[in-house]
Amino acid sequence: MRSIGLDVGGTKVLGVVVDVSGTVLDEHRVLTPSTDGVLLVAAMAEVVTVLHDRHGEVATVGAGVAGLITRDGMARFSPNLSGVVELPVAALLSEAVGLPVALDNDATCALRAEHRRGAARGVDDVALVALGTGVGGAFILDGELRRGASGFAGEIGHMVVDVGGVPCVCGRRGCWERYASGTGLGRMGREAAEAGRAPRLVELAGGDPLAVRGEHVTAAAAEGDAAALAVVDVLAGWVAIGLVNLCQALDVARFVIGGGLAEAGDVIIEPIRRAYDERAVGAAYRPRVEIVAAQLGEQAGAVGAALLAASMP
Amino acid sequence: MRSIGLDVGGTKVLGVVVDVSGTVLDEHRVLTPSTDGVLLVAAMAEVVTVLHDRHGEVATVGAGVAGLITRDGMARFSPNLSGVVELPVAALLSEAVGLPVALDNDATCALRAEHRRGAARGVDDVALVALGTGVGGAFILDGELRRGASGFAGEIGHMVVDVGGVPCVCGRRGCWERYASGTGLGRMGREAAEAGRAPRLVELAGGDPLAVRGEHVTAAAAEGDAAALAVVDVLAGWVAIGLVNLCQALDVARFVIGGGLAEAGDVIIEPIRRAYDERAVGAAYRPRVEIVAAQLGEQAGAVGAALLAASMP
Repeated sequence: MRSIGLDVGGTKVLGVVVDVSGTVLDEHRVLTPSTDGVLLVAAMAEVVTVLHDRHGEVATVGAGVAGLITRDGMARFSPNLSGVVELPVAALLSEAVGLPVALDNDATCALRAEHRRGAARGVDDVALVALGTGVGGAFILDGELRRGASGFAGEIGHMVVDVGGVPCVCGRRGCWERYASGTGLGRMGREAAEAGRAPRLVELAGGDPLAVRGEHVTAAAAEGDAAALAVVDVLAGWVAIGLVNLCQALDVARFVIGGGLAEAGDVIIEPIRRAYDERAVGAAYRPRVEIVAAQLGEQAGAVGAALLAASMP
Repeated sequence: MRSIGLDVGGTKVLGVVVDVSGTVLDEHRVLTPSTDGVLLVAAMAEVVTVLHDRHGEVATVGAGVAGLITRDGMARFSPNLSGVVELPVAALLSEAVGLPVALDNDATCALRAEHRRGAARGVDDVALVALGTGVGGAFILDGELRRGASGFAGEIGHMVVDVGGVPCVCGRRGCWERYASGTGLGRMGREAAEAGRAPRLVELAGGDPLAVRGEHVTAAAAEGDAAALAVVDVLAGWVAIGLVNLCQALDVARFVIGGGLAEAGDVIIEPIRRAYDERAVGAAYRPRVEIVAAQLGEQAGAVGAALLAASMP
């Protein structure tokens, strides 16, 4: 039998269907209606239905959703999905699609997949850091996924790193994800474009400095554009600040960088490694932390959700 | 048989001798010679010898030292003890005192003691945050002390919370312990005193604004001095920023506040609770985190080290 896994992020709902061996047979995606819980569940149901119609023989559905997810399938709160407040996603989606549904945090799903078959394989102390619209996280410590007292561990995007800094969707200032995310990269790119420092970014954005997004920056950086590379270096510095904070607390041996930004590969990962080495505390006295890109790409969360679904009793 | 436990912080070496039931029979302390590893071990040996001479029948010694401590008794690096670099403390101390010595991180020792007999008893997901010269930390997650890949977990004092902020002993800027510590409280007190806003602090410091230390601030706050209470509120805000960061990552159910600052009790703890509630993310959607003072006071680390020693094979 097959399972369908969904990854619900701030931008898109991505679904995959996997077979018993865990091989991805197909995917489907729609934009995330982030401000309305009912529409969000309807979008999730649409993705399930499309994949189910194409492939049949689906037994279970898993979904990873950004935010505070209880162990009994309730999405309590999500800073980047304003429509998600006390939303019984598992029950609603199950009723909509007529299949059992398991719910978990999106980053936890991604780490489950990367640990089983990707960049976290064989590592007992490892953190997944998903750089997307926001920043998600999940930890395996001493070989076990850490859920926390309420199941809410890993909400690292709202770690304050710059106390008087950029206002955040959570109502505070200076949260890590305001900088170390696709959103942050886009903002830094627009600032460079508006200041006249980044003509290639403006070009890629169709001539409008205010239309510059994160993917324009990584694309220009991949071409070798100096202005874009400088913006990526600033982003990498912010990413490294948070990674060092996490390693100070948790002493992980490896960071797996996922999320949309990791899709850019070494253009992003190499500057993060350099910036990390510049900021590590007591680096001479501890093993070098590995920083690697997620291997399952943007499908990691959906695949991990499908793995979760396949393990349902 | 009895065990001796030592707690080596940035300011003092505190030793206790405990009997088989874990009852503390006596304590002895000396100032920490922090800049010289040989003198530091000699100071530790002196404390052991004094307690041993007084009580006899001591079988084992445990020591908790701030910094990166390997599982085989090496103190690799300590930001607040500049004399500690690649120092085989367990071997050196054992040779000096003729007893077997177990070594661990100081905050890990304190949490071991608080979990066994103090403020962390019965809690499966709990962090100790020791506010002293610096900030130390240790975590119990799912009921187990988390050591990390190299044994270096819990070095939370060097979590950056204010990226362009106050220079830190670690060479970076804006580390949490520059603010949320006795050192930070003293600096904030001196700033208030020098600005002429805190006459009572100047008085307690013997008339010299530059002599104001953290304990003058907590003493004046306990008297109800408005200027001191305002400084404590600023400190509490900084403490809360880091506690929220940790809870976002780890989802603990309780914080146990230890270290020298916790000695002030509710004068410190209550403002931290209020500041935490103002800053918690998604507070309406998660259980309220408990913030309590350590119960074993400044002896916690030494008692935990003695418990570690008593458990030596």
